[in-house]
Amino acid sequence: MSNVEGLLEQHGTPIKDVYLDWENGSIVDKEVFEAMTPIYLEKNFANPAITHKLGWETYDFYVKAKTRIAQPLNINPQSVALTHSSTESNNLAIKGLLRLNKKKKKIIVSEVEHLSVIHTAKSLFNQQYEVEILPVSNDGTINLDLLQEKLDNDTLAVSLQTINHEIGTIQPIKEALEIVKDKNEDIFFHTDATAAFGRIPLDYDKLEVDLATFSSNSILGPKGIAALFVKEGIKLKAMYEGQLSVEVLSPDVENPALLAGFAKAVELQFRNFDQIKSDITKRRDKLLYGLLTSIERTEVNGPSGERRAPDNVNISYLGCEGEALTVECSMNGIYVSSGSACTSRVLMPSHILTAIGRKPEEAHGSLLMKLNRLNTDDQIDYVLEKMPKIISRIRSITGGIEL
Amino acid sequence: MSNVEGLLEQHGTPIKDVYLDWENGSIVDKEVFEAMTPIYLEKNFANPAITHKLGWETYDFYVKAKTRIAQPLNINPQSVALTHSSTESNNLAIKGLLRLNKKKKKIIVSEVEHLSVIHTAKSLFNQQYEVEILPVSNDGTINLDLLQEKLDNDTLAVSLQTINHEIGTIQPIKEALEIVKDKNEDIFFHTDATAAFGRIPLDYDKLEVDLATFSSNSILGPKGIAALFVKEGIKLKAMYEGQLSVEVLSPDVENPALLAGFAKAVELQFRNFDQIKSDITKRRDKLLYGLLTSIERTEVNGPSGERRAPDNVNISYLGCEGEALTVECSMNGIYVSSGSACTSRVLMPSHILTAIGRKPEEAHGSLLMKLNRLNTDDQIDYVLEKMPKIISRIRSITGGIEL
Repeated sequence: MSNVEGLLEQHGTPIKDVYLDWENGSIVDKEVFEAMTPIYLEKNFANPAITHKLGWETYDFYVKAKTRIAQPLNINPQSVALTHSSTESNNLAIKGLLRLNKKKKKIIVSEVEHLSVIHTAKSLFNQQYEVEILPVSNDGTINLDLLQEKLDNDTLAVSLQTINHEIGTIQPIKEALEIVKDKNEDIFFHTDATAAFGRIPLDYDKLEVDLATFSSNSILGPKGIAALFVKEGIKLKAMYEGQLSVEVLSPDVENPALLAGFAKAVELQFRNFDQIKSDITKRRDKLLYGLLTSIERTEVNGPSGERRAPDNVNISYLGCEGEALTVECSMNGIYVSSGSACTSRVLMPSHILTAIGRKPEEAHGSLLMKLNRLNTDDQIDYVLEKMPKIISRIRSITGGIEL
Repeated sequence: MSNVEGLLEQHGTPIKDVYLDWENGSIVDKEVFEAMTPIYLEKNFANPAITHKLGWETYDFYVKAKTRIAQPLNINPQSVALTHSSTESNNLAIKGLLRLNKKKKKIIVSEVEHLSVIHTAKSLFNQQYEVEILPVSNDGTINLDLLQEKLDNDTLAVSLQTINHEIGTIQPIKEALEIVKDKNEDIFFHTDATAAFGRIPLDYDKLEVDLATFSSNSILGPKGIAALFVKEGIKLKAMYEGQLSVEVLSPDVENPALLAGFAKAVELQFRNFDQIKSDITKRRDKLLYGLLTSIERTEVNGPSGERRAPDNVNISYLGCEGEALTVECSMNGIYVSSGSACTSRVLMPSHILTAIGRKPEEAHGSLLMKLNRLNTDDQIDYVLEKMPKIISRIRSITGGIEL
């Protein structure tokens, strides 16, 4: 990438820009930016732990902001532990439990978890832990029978995502939770809800998970702040040491500007939640079925209908190579990621596509498009118009061979 | 603090506001905010690891921003590992070394390090490590003879701060480094330079430290981003697991908006570095000596003259209690912290003031005032006018007794 300026020069300026790579990077909503502005420049920037007027004001703002974040999840604001990212929340959930509960030695996760869960789990293999990585069906659904089978008296924790971030599978979390708690009330249940927060209703007063990860940047809030819901009474050990202030699980994490943005993003996402969900679902269906009917030799990754996340379109275009695809899309002003974006600079097929049985060539020819409330009908029409040409061109370059 | 609204109502609105609590919280410079604005709203927000035009643009921006951050330290931009905070950088430096170098079992730090170093070191006590915590002189200077004495063939790393964040002691880092490397080139030397970055010249091409921590929020950049300089060839283990992108030591840490702010803050702080340093030093002297000559029964914490950080004023007012002091200052619109701000909601004297031999009552009666380029001569005059009255009032309330 040292020649990135050359690449940009060759690329030119597309006539239209349609950003669908929300999984990997995001602007903030304009109102989110407006909520952060005064804190960056003039007020509520002080440390909420300090005993002076500005500290008290920040503390007051801080408590109110956390209350706004907690509200749509129906949880106690004091159960919201702030972190810097979903990655940190996931690490904190699993390692934080392990470090305080040394007797039980088994952890169960699924094959399609985010890499921050998968790699955390795998890092435990050589630390005398038993790690079960549950397989999934070909639409990415966790195998509940195997979950039941693998649970035992040595099981400390189960970590299963609510929605898969890459192929949009809405997991049977309620059923998984029942299976786990029926086996033993003391087994901790963590869910990475990053891809679900703001997409489907989540009520942690009714759904009694112990720990849940969710983030700001996934709902048009700023990057650099996320949260871990920690049910009352559950103890975790912090991952790093430092001076504690208002947040007790992550030293130095208090960040009033980002918190203001996070709280505003939550407010905006849930203000017209049903409308947003219904609009995005319609656009998703238009895009997904439009692409499938206008382009040959395609395979949807993930489930269809109600069991698919409202914002997720993931299709493998056979006979295409992912890097060539994202570049050709980009030349047309369509910004998407391939395989797994997470690993796109490393030429390895996404572990999620591999888990649902895609061959490497199918995984490499996949594109992930995510939608949010900023995407318009016009943009969907534009993508539907351009994509058949993009796919033909890429197939003609590679000779249409079965890669 | 549940009654914070009541506290604020009682407090009222001061006629003037002078913020000197930069150690604990900070706005950003207006130009820093302007540098972040386009990234929050429209460009260079994409993930720098993704293969499309917006990803390439972010990558290009990313590399250039890191180059600007590296420049005043005279280091290779590729040696700048981004983290979320100085706390994370300090943890990463020490734990990252330990986890890859299991043979050597001794770590040396000083008694006046930041709590993120002290607590990290202390957490190793019960993990079969030998931790030496070096005492300091009564102005906070590290004892070099003892450093020499404690170094042995089992020593893996030494971590000593460049400037003390609370009492402003400029440490003899060059001498300490020589002692360490003379003993054994392979002993890793880490310095927490958070309180030094932008205050005194630092040139890591000449001063061959292995690892150095510095941050954005300490120089009017945004909170939520910091860095660890990692000299070429030094290997560290990341503290948490996740999908790696451009930054290899902290998964998910890439944050273009905060990076833009960090780079701009560095540019501003170093653009007129000598002038800024000289102006702040003059204001510090005016404030420090003004307070000492107008108020009785005071003790300066930390050294005087050239060996004191240009931005640091820390004085113990005998017969006063810190919490009462900061509140009385606040009523007059002067925002400062007491004891150690880090521990100010926990009623314990600062570990740094204890380390330099202050009795608990002296530590509790201390106020830390920090200056930066936004503070004006007028503000210094105002503080000098108000402080004698504030101290008298507090002493009259407590009956002026020797607390």
